Amino acid sequence: MSEVQKTRVTLLAGGVGGAKMAEGLAALDDIDLTIIGNVADDDAFHDLWVSPDIDTLTYSLAGLIDRSKGWGVADEGNRALDVLKTLGEDTWMFLGDRDFGLHIYRTMRRGQGDRPSDIAADVARAFGVGPKILLPTDDIVQTRLETDIGELGFQDYFVREQCKPDVSALHYVGASKATPTDEALEALALAEIIVVAPSNPVLSIAPILAIPGMTEALKASSAHKIGVSPFIAGKVVKGPAAKVMASLGLRADSLGVAEQYQGLIDILVIDDQDKALVGDIEALGIKAPSCDILMKDAEDKKRLARQVMDWALSASCEGGAE
Amino acid sequence: MSEVQKTRVTLLAGGVGGAKMAEGLAALDDIDLTIIGNVADDDAFHDLWVSPDIDTLTYSLAGLIDRSKGWGVADEGNRALDVLKTLGEDTWMFLGDRDFGLHIYRTMRRGQGDRPSDIAADVARAFGVGPKILLPTDDIVQTRLETDIGELGFQDYFVREQCKPDVSALHYVGASKATPTDEALEALALAEIIVVAPSNPVLSIAPILAIPGMTEALKASSAHKIGVSPFIAGKVVKGPAAKVMASLGLRADSLGVAEQYQGLIDILVIDDQDKALVGDIEALGIKAPSCDILMKDAEDKKRLARQVMDWALSASCEGGAE
Repeated sequence: MSEVQKTRVTLLAGGVGGAKMAEGLAALDDIDLTIIGNVADDDAFHDLWVSPDIDTLTYSLAGLIDRSKGWGVADEGNRALDVLKTLGEDTWMFLGDRDFGLHIYRTMRRGQGDRPSDIAADVARAFGVGPKILLPTDDIVQTRLETDIGELGFQDYFVREQCKPDVSALHYVGASKATPTDEALEALALAEIIVVAPSNPVLSIAPILAIPGMTEALKASSAHKIGVSPFIAGKVVKGPAAKVMASLGLRADSLGVAEQYQGLIDILVIDDQDKALVGDIEALGIKAPSCDILMKDAEDKKRLARQVMDWALSASCEGGAE
Repeated sequence: MSEVQKTRVTLLAGGVGGAKMAEGLAALDDIDLTIIGNVADDDAFHDLWVSPDIDTLTYSLAGLIDRSKGWGVADEGNRALDVLKTLGEDTWMFLGDRDFGLHIYRTMRRGQGDRPSDIAADVARAFGVGPKILLPTDDIVQTRLETDIGELGFQDYFVREQCKPDVSALHYVGASKATPTDEALEALALAEIIVVAPSNPVLSIAPILAIPGMTEALKASSAHKIGVSPFIAGKVVKGPAAKVMASLGLRADSLGVAEQYQGLIDILVIDDQDKALVGDIEALGIKAPSCDILMKDAEDKKRLARQVMDWALSASCEGGAE
C-alpha cells in the first residue's frame, strides 16, 4: 500500500492509556498516525524540564517503555537521583538516569530558545519513533488541582501525594493565554479520523482542548471523531480518573466520559461490560459500540485500534452521528 | 589531642596528584586541613556546570573515588550519557550518572545565585568530607591553551584531544578580573604550613595563583611553605605536565617545578631518583629534601604526608630557607 492511500489519523493522547492507544494505532500499516500529546503534566525538577506524558509516548512508541510500570524506560538506573538525595534534594519524583539524559537534553535545547515542539520531534526521531508526536502548544500550561490539602501541581498530586487528596477543582494554568501550534491545528484540520484515546478526560484531554483554538479546530474538522472510554465497569485500568471525576461531581463511568465529550465526538467505544450505558450515551448524540477495550498486550492494542478504525469508517458509511 | 593543638595546614591542589596529597594529609589526625582547589578546568557540558578538580577532591576525600582511574566515582553508570549520545550530543567528555546528579545540583544552585564556594562546601559536607574544600574564586576562570590545532579549552585539550597537541601558550581567561574568596585568602593567612601538592604547576597551581591577591597572600603568609614535585626522574605519574612544560619551553623535571615556585616556597620535596637536581634547586633558594614520593596506596599517601609535615616543621626549627 503506498503512502498516499494511508488514512490520516490524529490521536489526542495523555498518560499510559494514551500511549497504549498510540501503540495500537502505530501497529496498523494502513494509517498515517499523528499524535497530539498533553504537556500540562510538565514540571521542573532540579531545574530540569520534565514532560512525562510526551516521554511516555516517545518511550512507548520507541519500544523502550518499562512494560511492568507502563512509564519510564526499561534498563533504568537511579544513580543520579541517589546523588541528588545525598545532596538533600527532594526525590519523591522518580527520575531515572536515562530519563535525566533526556531531561538534560530538553532543558538545554529550551535554554537555547528552541521550540518545545521541535525538541519533541527531534527526540522522537532520535529514538526511532515513526508517528509524529506533536505538542498542542509551545507555551507552558500546567494543571493545578484544588484539593483538601491545598492547591497542588499535577506531579505533587499524582506522584508525591499518590492521588489521595480530594479534588474540588482543576485549573489549566497558562492555557487561556497559550497559542496552539500550527502543527496541532493542521493535524486536526487534515485528519480523516480523530481518535480521543482512553485517557483521563479531565487531566489529559481537557488541558489539550483548553488551549484556545484547539476545541474549535476539533469541532471544525471534517474528520470522523471517535473516542475510547478509559472506564470499564466504573473503574479505570490506571490513574486517578475515577476518583478525580467523582471528586469533581462528575459521573465516574463511560457515560461521564461521554458527557465530557458531547459535541466533540461522534462515537465513544465502550467496554462490553458497560452496555447498560448505551442508551444514555446515545441520548447525548454519541454512538456507543462496545467491545473488550482492555489492552493487556500488543495484540490487544492492535485489535482495539483496528476495531476503532473500522467503527470510525463504518460510521462514515452510515452517515454517522453527525 | 584536642582541636586547638592541631597544626593548621592549607593545601593548594589540582588534579589527581592534588587529591592524593589531600587524602594523605587528611589521614593525619594532628592537622587541621584546608584545601584550595583549582576551578580553571571547569566547563559547561550539556548546559551543566562541571568542576572536575573540585569533584575529584570531594570524591577522593569521601572515599568514593574510582581507584582504578583516579577520577570519577566508583559504581558509576553511563545511562544518561548513553541517551545524550542517542540524541546526537557530543559525549567525548565522560560524565557518569552519579556525576550528572552532582552537576545537576551544582547547576541548579548556581542558577539560584548561590556562591560556588558555598555549593562546593555543601557538597563536601553532604558527602561526609572532613577537610574544608575552598574555591580560590567564585568567578569563572578557565584555562585556554594555544596549540598547533588552534586554541582549546582545558577539557577539549585534556579529554577530547588526549593531550596530543603541542601547547605554545596558556591563558587563564577571567583570572585577571577575578576576585579571590575571603575563605581562600584567610586560609593562606592563617596557615602554619602551606603545602603545594604534586600537581601540574602550570595547569593546576598557576591558575589558582593567577587570581589577583592569591600570590600576594601566599607570599605574605608567615606559614612554612613546602611543595611536592609531581616529577619522578623527568616523568609524571599522571597527566600532561611533562609534555606541556616542555612545549612551553620550561624544564620538564623537578628543577623546572622549582623554577615555577621560586620565591613562593621554602622547600620542594623531590624523589630520591632526582637527587642530582638538589644543587640547582637549592641555588634557587629552595631546600630539596628527597624521599620516595610515589603514592600508590593509602599507606604511601599518609607516609608522604607525614614526611612533608616533618620537613615543613623541621625547616621551622632550623630557620628554614626564608
